[in-house]
This record gives sequence, C-alpha cells and structure tokens, in this order.
Amino acid sequence: MKRAYNFNAGPSALPTEVLEKAQSELLDFENTGMSVMELSHRSKEYENVHHTAAQLLRDLLNIPEDYDVLFLQGGASLQFAMIPLNFLDEGKVANYILTGSWSEKALKEAKFIGKTAIAGSTKESNYTFIPDISSLQYNEHDSYVHLTSNNTIFGTQWHTYPSVSHAPLIVDMSSDILSRPLPVKNFDLIYAGAQKNLGPSGVTVVIIRKELLKRNVDHVPTMLRYQTHAEKQSLYNTPPTFGIYMLKEVLQWLKNIGGTEQIAERNQTKANLIYGAIDESEQFYKGHATKESRSLMNVTFTLPTEELTQQFLSEAKEKGFVGLNGHRSVGGCRASIYNGVPVEACEALADFMHSFYQTHR
Amino acid sequence: MKRAYNFNAGPSALPTEVLEKAQSELLDFENTGMSVMELSHRSKEYENVHHTAAQLLRDLLNIPEDYDVLFLQGGASLQFAMIPLNFLDEGKVANYILTGSWSEKALKEAKFIGKTAIAGSTKESNYTFIPDISSLQYNEHDSYVHLTSNNTIFGTQWHTYPSVSHAPLIVDMSSDILSRPLPVKNFDLIYAGAQKNLGPSGVTVVIIRKELLKRNVDHVPTMLRYQTHAEKQSLYNTPPTFGIYMLKEVLQWLKNIGGTEQIAERNQTKANLIYGAIDESEQFYKGHATKESRSLMNVTFTLPTEELTQQFLSEAKEKGFVGLNGHRSVGGCRASIYNGVPVEACEALADFMHSFYQTHR
Ligand SMILES: Cc1ncc(COP(=O)(O)O)c(C=O)c1O
Ligand SMILES: Cc1ncc(COP(=O)(O)O)c(C=O)c1O
Ligand SMILES: [Mg+2]
Ligand SMILES: [Mg+2]
Ligand SMILES: [Mg+2]
Ligand SMILES: [Mg+2]
Repeated sequence: MKRAYNFNAGPSALPTEVLEKAQSELLDFENTGMSVMELSHRSKEYENVHHTAAQLLRDLLNIPEDYDVLFLQGGASLQFAMIPLNFLDEGKVANYILTGSWSEKALKEAKFIGKTAIAGSTKESNYTFIPDISSLQYNEHDSYVHLTSNNTIFGTQWHTYPSVSHAPLIVDMSSDILSRPLPVKNFDLIYAGAQKNLGPSGVTVVIIRKELLKRNVDHVPTMLRYQTHAEKQSLYNTPPTFGIYMLKEVLQWLKNIGGTEQIAERNQTKANLIYGAIDESEQFYKGHATKESRSLMNVTFTLPTEELTQQFLSEAKEKGFVGLNGHRSVGGCRASIYNGVPVEACEALADFMHSFYQTHR
Repeated sequence: MKRAYNFNAGPSALPTEVLEKAQSELLDFENTGMSVMELSHRSKEYENVHHTAAQLLRDLLNIPEDYDVLFLQGGASLQFAMIPLNFLDEGKVANYILTGSWSEKALKEAKFIGKTAIAGSTKESNYTFIPDISSLQYNEHDSYVHLTSNNTIFGTQWHTYPSVSHAPLIVDMSSDILSRPLPVKNFDLIYAGAQKNLGPSGVTVVIIRKELLKRNVDHVPTMLRYQTHAEKQSLYNTPPTFGIYMLKEVLQWLKNIGGTEQIAERNQTKANLIYGAIDESEQFYKGHATKESRSLMNVTFTLPTEELTQQFLSEAKEKGFVGLNGHRSVGGCRASIYNGVPVEACEALADFMHSFYQTHR
C-alpha cells in the first residue's frame, strides 16, 4: 500500500507507525477483548491512556508543575468563546493581536462577551507578516492579550514572542504546537485543536497556568469553565476517548524520535526544501509571507498566472500530492508540512516544483 | 481473539463487524492512501462520509424534512447548557421533568441562564419509576419542556411519551436513541451523545425542528448556536471526523440488520433474558426500577447483601463480564445492553445469574 503525499491543512497526515499500531490493536486493546473505543472512561485501562497522554505532553514540552493540561472538545473554535467567558472581566478589555483569519475569529467571539481592543494587526498587508513586537499597543485595563502563533491560512508564524507581564498571555497554537521547543512559562494559556500536529480532530489541548483557574466563573455554565475540567482531570463528562488514545500514540512517537528538538530540526529541513524551491525559481513561485515571517508549518505561494496555478495543482494531484490548494481567502497553493509529514514527501514536492518551473519558466 | 462480554454504560460495546471494517481500512480509506482521520474535512471523500451518516440517520428514524440533523462536540453535557442558551427566553421558564441524575444536571445548567420549573419528579422514590403523564405540571410561560428518555444510572425508561403542544419538547435520548422506532415529529429537539448506541464518544447527535432555528440568538457565541451548525451542515469548524465515520458505519450496520424495528425486537429479547433472571430469582436479585418503568437499555439490580453483590461482581469479572458495577449513586449492579451488545452476551449473563443464584439462594 502506497501512502499519499499528504499536505492537508488539518485534519492532516499522521505518522504511519502510529496508524499501524492503532490498526493492530483496534479490536483488542491490551488483551481486554475490547477496542479502546469500547472501554469505559472510568476504567483503569482507559484512565491509564488518558493520564499517560497528559504526562507525555508534560514531558515533551517541559510543562511546569503550576500548569494543568486539559483535553477538551469543540475544537479551537470553542476556545474562542470559552476564553472571554472565563477571563474577560467586567470593565476590562480583551486585547487581540491580529495576524490572520483565526485571530479575527477569536476576536469576534470576545466581542459577544465584553470590551475588546486590537494591540496590533497586519491586515492591511493581507497578513503577509507578523507585526513588530515593539509596535504592539497594550492597555492597562487588559484582561488578557491574545495571539495566534502560526497563521494556518496565510502561512506566517511568530519566531519571537512578545513578553507580556501586565496581563495573561493567551495563545492559539493550533497549527504549530509541538513543532519546536516551547518556553511554556512565557504563556498563561495555550490551546490547540489536535488535528494538525497532535492527532485526529475532536480533541482540543489546553495548557493553563493554575493561577488562572482561581477566577470567579460563577456565571459560566459548568461545561464552559476551565475549572470544571481541571478539577476532574478532563473526566468531568465522557471525553473523546479514541482521539485521546491517538494523541497519546502520536506523543509517544514524538518522544521516540527524539522530542521537540529533533522534530524542530526535521521541520526546518522540510521547510527549507519547499522554500528553497520557491527561492530558486526567480519569482516563478511567489511566497505570500515575507521571509522573516515565514511559517515552518504552512508554506503559501502563487504562480505567475491563475492558469499556471491551476495547471500546477492539477498535475500535482495526478502525481499523488494531496491538499495543495490554498485557502479560498488567499488563493494559490499551500503545503502544510506538520510533524506527521515525512521529509520524503517534501523532497518529492520540491522535485515536482523544480521540474514544473523548468517546464513553464 | 475472544471478544469480552461488554456491559459498559458508555462508551460501550460496538458491533464487531463495524470494528473489523474500520480496522481493515484504517491506513487506506477507499484507495486514498490515507486514513479517514487524515482526510481534510473539506474533501469530497470526507464530505461523503459526513452526509451519508446524516442521511442514514434520517432513513433509520424517518426524520421529516423540516428537521435538521447535526453532529456536534462536547457530549450531552454541553447540550445541557446550549439548550437554555438558545431557547430559554427572558421572562419565560424552562420546565424540566426529573427522572434521574442526568435530568438534574440538565436542569442545573438551565438555572445559569434563566428561570426554571419542575414539571414532575420521582426523586423521592430514588427515581425508581417514570412519573404518570397525567401528573405533569406545565406552565403557560414554558420556554420548553425537557425530559430524559432513558435513565442510564437508575435503569428506567419512558415507554409512552407525554404529548406537549404548548411549548417545544426537548429530549435527552443519549442512552436509548435508535434502540426502537421513534415518532420524531412528537419532539422538537432530540440530542444524544454517541457513545452508547451510535458509536464512539466525541460526537453528539442533535435532531432539531427547523422552526427552532429561527429564534433570536444574537447574544450567543457562534459555536454555541444551533443555527451556526445547521447553516454549515455541521462543518462550521472541524468536526470529529473519525467519530462521524464510525457513526456512519454503525448506522450502516443497523440498516443492514433491518433497522429500528429489528433492533427493537432484539433489544427486547436481550432485556427479557436479564429481567427474566431477576424475576425468576424470588427476590434474590432485586430490580431498582418498577416493572412498568424498566429500561430496555440499562438493567439495574442488587443482591440480598452488599457482600453477595461484591462476590457476584468479582466472579462475573473473572468469567469475562465487563462493566457490571452499578453507578456509585445507586450501588449494586447494572448491565447496559445497548444495540452493540449481542444476544449471546445477554444469554451468558443470564446463565451466570441463574447459576450464582442457585449456589447462593
Ligand atoms: C490557528 C487555528 N486556529 C483555530 C482553528 C479552528 O480550529 P477548529 O476547527 O478545531 O475549531 C484553526 C483551524 O484550522 C487554526 O488553524
Ligand atoms: C442520559 C444521559 N445524558 C447525558 C449524559 C452525559 O453525556 P456526556 O458524557 O456525553 O456529556 C449521559 C452519560 O452517560 C447520559 O447517560
Ligand atoms: Mg490564518
Ligand atoms: Mg506573563
Ligand atoms: Mg440517570
Ligand atoms: Mg409538540
């Protein structure tokens, strides 16, 4: 069986070894005579999966003791609402840095709850770069500051983070969590839908400073409070057990290959291959992002004409490349090269880009 | 490989054939060279899975055209909050019928949003029965009436539903949806976590009368509006794709074996086996529910002493029966015999109950 060259933006490629393990034990998890999907979430066997997943994440990211790790449902999009519901205090302001569509959507949900501000935005440039840290405008009444670490659609990424001390710093890391080492203590809440670097869709990971759990949330429905899930170790209600099992397997795989330092190197190699193909093409391929702001996870580019773009995409598809269409709001092409995408797939894509360029230059 | 006798209350037993199919295509879904988990939720292949799942549910339950079928996240517990957020109007009352812990939890979330009332309750009897329909007390200001069709913990079930015309009737069918034919038009909103009769945890099914989607929900965050998900056919954000795929396979299985009429017969046979073992034991096994209110999904019972209960549970465990411990709030034993539990497992349990009774009577 040949595996596709999968460049999907999420849900996306998973490590083959992980899928093979899941397949081998799908009907009989650790001699229980049951699938992991059939285990009670209150059973020893499942609880072991659940807590091991959390521990692996702690190990891989060196998460300090004063943070909780949560597994929630609803995707990053539900976090957009839960964050202001839990942390936007009356009379204060939720301050968002806009670097793409996902930041905009996060901001939009905060507006349902209270006052908001924009600390910085590169919307005018169609989000081709990350704003200068020194240009960001904070507010003494900030309830929190929010940013998006990697902009899945536009293909930009923060390479240095602002250091925020006047208010909690909350970060949507959906599309680059675990792609590189991370100084967790610089952040107060990190969240990520699993479906890019962590596993299948249906699980959302939250890493939260315990201090934030002390806020008064008496007005918030039980399921929408971080407190609820922290107190019950994400077992308040039935968690997405199979998704968390897959997450655990992906984390184990990452640990086995050497953790975040190792994957960061590999991701750099992969990105170099594709950005290399762009840079060597004398503007035949044009990157959407400025060089300084390039994402190592989502490479966005266009060809000289819409016609050539379409021809590129259709030839790529024939050759077995999947998911290269750009998002409708940017157009062009996008190669998402998350942790689960092997170097080999990026080599194949770079080769194809070179030869398409040679033919059509 | 021997399959366990799985009586888990949820997540619970899935049909072996469904798991085998999922296993066989786990690394290569329909010759895509990808796992179904690796497909983009915007791809033709996944969209086909998604819409087929909805259509199968429509076919199996004869869902009328003026209802939408939604696939959400967050479990039934998030519905407890979404329902009053969307439908509890200012100055009106959410009216709950209490038949167990889950009804109580649903009521508790409505209290965060607005005024509530209790149309009926059997709490005083420790929820051993379903209230008389004629005893229920409605209110002209009801925003909606809510009930729990099957009480997973106490083992009772509505066998005739009240007909409610002054307000929408909303029903938590988490633990008996698709166990029998259902007159959908008698209800305005039906919801169910998938992890009992429908598939793995992580998917929540909602069947909603389109009329209800016209309510003004301008104040509700986007992800918490039914409208949002209805308008986008449950593809507003990334859905739990693998869970929905499994749901589709379970629905296909149910259709293949003859649908709800057929499964209702099978479920009656299964329940008869276990209630038979109780009734033939001359009060050695004592059912928690009154006969009229017995659940065909969760059979709850105790033995003459706590010691015998513990001995029963530990011998059962040795013999390969899984999940027979009662919920901590009722104690004793509980056999959950959802659609995925084969008749054979119920025969084995009835046999064991008979022989344990013969030894210890
Ligand atoms: C950065 C970012 N944030 C949020 C989302 C939304 O995630 P979900 O679909 O899980 O709600 C996405 C999805 O692609 C994303 O890339
Ligand atoms: C009748 C009923 N409602 C609600 C729930 C809660 O479901 P979830 O864990 O999916 O939130 C359950 C769980 O067992 C249930 O049986
Ligand atoms: Mg973006
Ligand atoms: Mg700080
Ligand atoms: Mg109950
Ligand atoms: Mg009615």
